[in-house]
Amino acid sequence: MQVKLNSDERVDYILKDRIQIIQTNDSFAFSLDTLLLGHFAAEFIHDNHKVADLCAGNGAASLFLAAQNKAKYDLVEIQPKMADIARRSILLNDLEDHLLVHEADVNDAFSFLAKDTYDVVVCNPPYFKVPAGHTVNPDEAKAIARHEIKINLEQVIQTASGLLKTRGKFFMVHRPERLNEIILGMQKYNLTIKYIQPFIPKTGKDTNLIVLQATKNSNPEGLILKNDIIVHNENDEYTKEIWDMIDGE
Amino acid sequence: MQVKLNSDERVDYILKDRIQIIQTNDSFAFSLDTLLLGHFAAEFIHDNHKVADLCAGNGAASLFLAAQNKAKYDLVEIQPKMADIARRSILLNDLEDHLLVHEADVNDAFSFLAKDTYDVVVCNPPYFKVPAGHTVNPDEAKAIARHEIKINLEQVIQTASGLLKTRGKFFMVHRPERLNEIILGMQKYNLTIKYIQPFIPKTGKDTNLIVLQATKNSNPEGLILKNDIIVHNENDEYTKEIWDMIDGE
Repeated sequence: MQVKLNSDERVDYILKDRIQIIQTNDSFAFSLDTLLLGHFAAEFIHDNHKVADLCAGNGAASLFLAAQNKAKYDLVEIQPKMADIARRSILLNDLEDHLLVHEADVNDAFSFLAKDTYDVVVCNPPYFKVPAGHTVNPDEAKAIARHEIKINLEQVIQTASGLLKTRGKFFMVHRPERLNEIILGMQKYNLTIKYIQPFIPKTGKDTNLIVLQATKNSNPEGLILKNDIIVHNENDEYTKEIWDMIDGE
Repeated sequence: MQVKLNSDERVDYILKDRIQIIQTNDSFAFSLDTLLLGHFAAEFIHDNHKVADLCAGNGAASLFLAAQNKAKYDLVEIQPKMADIARRSILLNDLEDHLLVHEADVNDAFSFLAKDTYDVVVCNPPYFKVPAGHTVNPDEAKAIARHEIKINLEQVIQTASGLLKTRGKFFMVHRPERLNEIILGMQKYNLTIKYIQPFIPKTGKDTNLIVLQATKNSNPEGLILKNDIIVHNENDEYTKEIWDMIDGE
């Protein structure tokens, strides 16, 4: 389907051009983080699954996933502009039978999504706390996507857990400096981390991104800490391993 | 000083022969894990510090550390045979003014070590739970060192926290599959993990060992997840990075 693009928008291609995603030039484009989240969730999503995508942004994670299975996706995005972009990207890819955008606060999710019914929840939440007295990004859309203005880590985890079935899986991308809070929050809402995939920006650097998989109502043992994946080579280009994930290989 | 060796014992050298350690041939020799623990704790121990070494075994971690500073070390080891070996290794290295072995249960530590007074606690605890109905190593000394027969993870953390001053540092080596329990236990006893150093046995393998640093009465933010260190090269020899740690370089 053809859709209308606003003057500040362009269309990008992912998964070797199988999916088109509308991006804005002046605001928040989808990030590598979102595609890595999709990559690690993809193998656990089956055609008969229900998936919730919290803090969905322009829908990149669900679009990436929907190209690979026939599951049903509920995307929750609080920002009207981002929700509108997500809806038009869904039309552009003829995926409106599989993806539904809810323009709403993730904190209200239980009023329009059924608790305890989701097989998988994915989330690329805001990573950063709002520092007391500090200013955040003057671009409000970016600020809401990056900082815990509308929702915080514990609220994201609480919602994910509430939506999941027992043994359902929660995939989240986040920063390693929040790992203590992540594990404590998961524990509080009956989620247990089962694996952590660290990413390092370049050889020899510390981890600056993690993709986590947690399971609802599972036991705390058996966490797998993967060896790290290097994102950029010495020329600041993505490594082959990263390109393979972006391309869905 | 010359010390008496039993017929089943030998002397090994670490830190480029600066330290001699008595090992038994039939029981539990010190492991690379213990030296890695020592390596990461070393830079945080000053000459005026008090250090507790819980589950000290033959004393390898404290001997490794004592070669590098003039701190005072209290070693706690429950097995009489291991405590005896540790005492003789201390004499062998003329370190009896700095290291004291307590042949005792770590769970009783508060009856002979002063609470809230230690700058650093190090621990290489038993890694494995005792599986219900399963048998553990028939060598009792090895079984006690490897399995949670005499002490479990939560008890180790509780004792470490009780001994430490506020802002004191706890270094522990453990397995990544216990990371959920480790972080939850730390939280319960007012310790916060500040960094995790993962080790992978070979290129491309998952992490199978972590060295952690936690701080007492600190905030939960700012965890550093280091890039992983590879232990063995393709010929199954230690990598240069590992040899440098063993050699104290």
